[in-house]
Amino acid sequence: MITTDICIIGAGPVGLFAVFEAGLLKMRCHLIDALPQVGGQLSEIYPQKPIYDIPGYPAINAQTLVDNLMEQIAPFNPGFTLGERVESLDRQEDGSYQITTSDGTAVHCQVVVIAGGLGSFEPRKPEILNLEQFEGKGVAYMVKNPEQLRNRRVVLAGGGDSALDWTIFLAEIAKEVTLVHRSDSFRGAPDSAEKVVELAKQGRINLVLQSNITSINGNGHLQEVTITAKDKSVTTLEADNLIPLFGLTPKLGPIADWGLSIDKSAISVDTTDYSTNVERIYAIGDINTYPGKLKLILCGFHEAALMCQSAFHHVHPNQKLSFKYTTVNGVPTF
Amino acid sequence: MITTDICIIGAGPVGLFAVFEAGLLKMRCHLIDALPQVGGQLSEIYPQKPIYDIPGYPAINAQTLVDNLMEQIAPFNPGFTLGERVESLDRQEDGSYQITTSDGTAVHCQVVVIAGGLGSFEPRKPEILNLEQFEGKGVAYMVKNPEQLRNRRVVLAGGGDSALDWTIFLAEIAKEVTLVHRSDSFRGAPDSAEKVVELAKQGRINLVLQSNITSINGNGHLQEVTITAKDKSVTTLEADNLIPLFGLTPKLGPIADWGLSIDKSAISVDTTDYSTNVERIYAIGDINTYPGKLKLILCGFHEAALMCQSAFHHVHPNQKLSFKYTTVNGVPTF
Repeated sequence: MITTDICIIGAGPVGLFAVFEAGLLKMRCHLIDALPQVGGQLSEIYPQKPIYDIPGYPAINAQTLVDNLMEQIAPFNPGFTLGERVESLDRQEDGSYQITTSDGTAVHCQVVVIAGGLGSFEPRKPEILNLEQFEGKGVAYMVKNPEQLRNRRVVLAGGGDSALDWTIFLAEIAKEVTLVHRSDSFRGAPDSAEKVVELAKQGRINLVLQSNITSINGNGHLQEVTITAKDKSVTTLEADNLIPLFGLTPKLGPIADWGLSIDKSAISVDTTDYSTNVERIYAIGDINTYPGKLKLILCGFHEAALMCQSAFHHVHPNQKLSFKYTTVNGVPTF
Repeated sequence: MITTDICIIGAGPVGLFAVFEAGLLKMRCHLIDALPQVGGQLSEIYPQKPIYDIPGYPAINAQTLVDNLMEQIAPFNPGFTLGERVESLDRQEDGSYQITTSDGTAVHCQVVVIAGGLGSFEPRKPEILNLEQFEGKGVAYMVKNPEQLRNRRVVLAGGGDSALDWTIFLAEIAKEVTLVHRSDSFRGAPDSAEKVVELAKQGRINLVLQSNITSINGNGHLQEVTITAKDKSVTTLEADNLIPLFGLTPKLGPIADWGLSIDKSAISVDTTDYSTNVERIYAIGDINTYPGKLKLILCGFHEAALMCQSAFHHVHPNQKLSFKYTTVNGVPTF
């Protein structure tokens, strides 16, 4: 049994920063994440993309932000259980909680902080014959490491920003890039769409509009992608990789059953301290909602700071909280 | 007359970051600050100190944070009126505002954002006979333009970083520099104090310790400074300029008369959008208060982001706000 003060569900940027704010108030944290690494969406979905709206960083690569946050919280020595899903939450007689994961890991804590982003993400899968059969064998729903696509024949599908951005990016390194989109207008940013059209004009990518991928084939690994146009014409392309990018659907998972007040798939919180309607359970970051809510990392940082002031009274019920500025006192560890 | 969308009173870190969030929503900003440079307390009070609680920075020098924020907002080309105090606010018939400064600068804007930190800082004035009589006539409480002190005989007073730093700086350009300090140890950075002592040994400045300035005189302009030592001995020095640097005390100033709801020297706001009780006036950062408020820079960043979503409807009343992530769209400028 792991014992800690605060169990944070979700090790994305907001969950990580909460460790820092908790540490300043002498509270220890343990983080659980279903993903195999820390960083949440940043590390999983767009590690190589720059983020422009982290205050004080004109631009920062998503993975670098995660690395910096890990360095910032290192003095507080948080615990991590990664690659495991939270399965159950049991309230103890004294008001504390025990959390159990899919792999049976048990964490006892005084306070639960849900920093689960948009929930655990599942890629939206298009209807393509044989699709699941080739998952991990040429078919993937996200680009984890673009280097693995160098000199490959890649087919992308979708019309949103991910599809456009990766088409532009992969045009530089893949052997051949084909973007298949069911419409002839794009949902993504207009300037990205323009760039894609321009790349197609230059012959640097193949742009197949008004079409859907209908089936795929191969011998143990993807070899062929079959495309059906709206006019019913059918084409078959040779391909090493297929990346359908139709977005992700967030799933709250078992958290949905904890008696929390939910509003449109997000957890309603009180902005005084980002507490939920259940005692000792807080929700911060993209997973919560309140009037004016913006799903920005920088907002989650603020929420983490206010949450800790309130959580302190559950962790150290007999102590007075004295607020100190790090500029004056530095970062005292445990 | 300067015309802008949002006039931000206070060019500290939170006011600066508001320019970025406003810019993403195509709103232009003009900033006014009573201090002669941007950065607020960070640049004025502790530029060389590290801050540890900016998310994503395990440690960052206060001035570096300011510099980074200036780089981050540069694409949106904000206007600045520095070294001037906001004097009055006049609501126009169409609901917009005109702001006028102590020096007569007028700014017309659709929205006013008060990001005034702990209030406009007023210099702490020492008790010196005739002091106020010579303000602007040789006596100043900050160095706005050091060039005006070239080849002058300058007396500085104080023992903190400002006094030390300006002594070191002015040693290069003034005709004569005297630093008067009541104690013989300094509150400022030890290496700055060492430098000052070294300059005194070299005869490049006069260092007068254990002493206070007790009176000043002149004929229309400062001519003489009288110094009384702890042992009661009295010296009179010829001087062109006297700069007492005893820190700043925060004052709300004329903002206190704008009909804003004030709670313990802070402006009450609605956490949905950090609006005040007066239409089109918002307050963000250390100057505002609400249940759970923490006076942290990172909280001001969050407040700036939510404020801009609301301000948008006053600046672009007929446009629909579409929320876009910079990771997807980058930072499109005007």
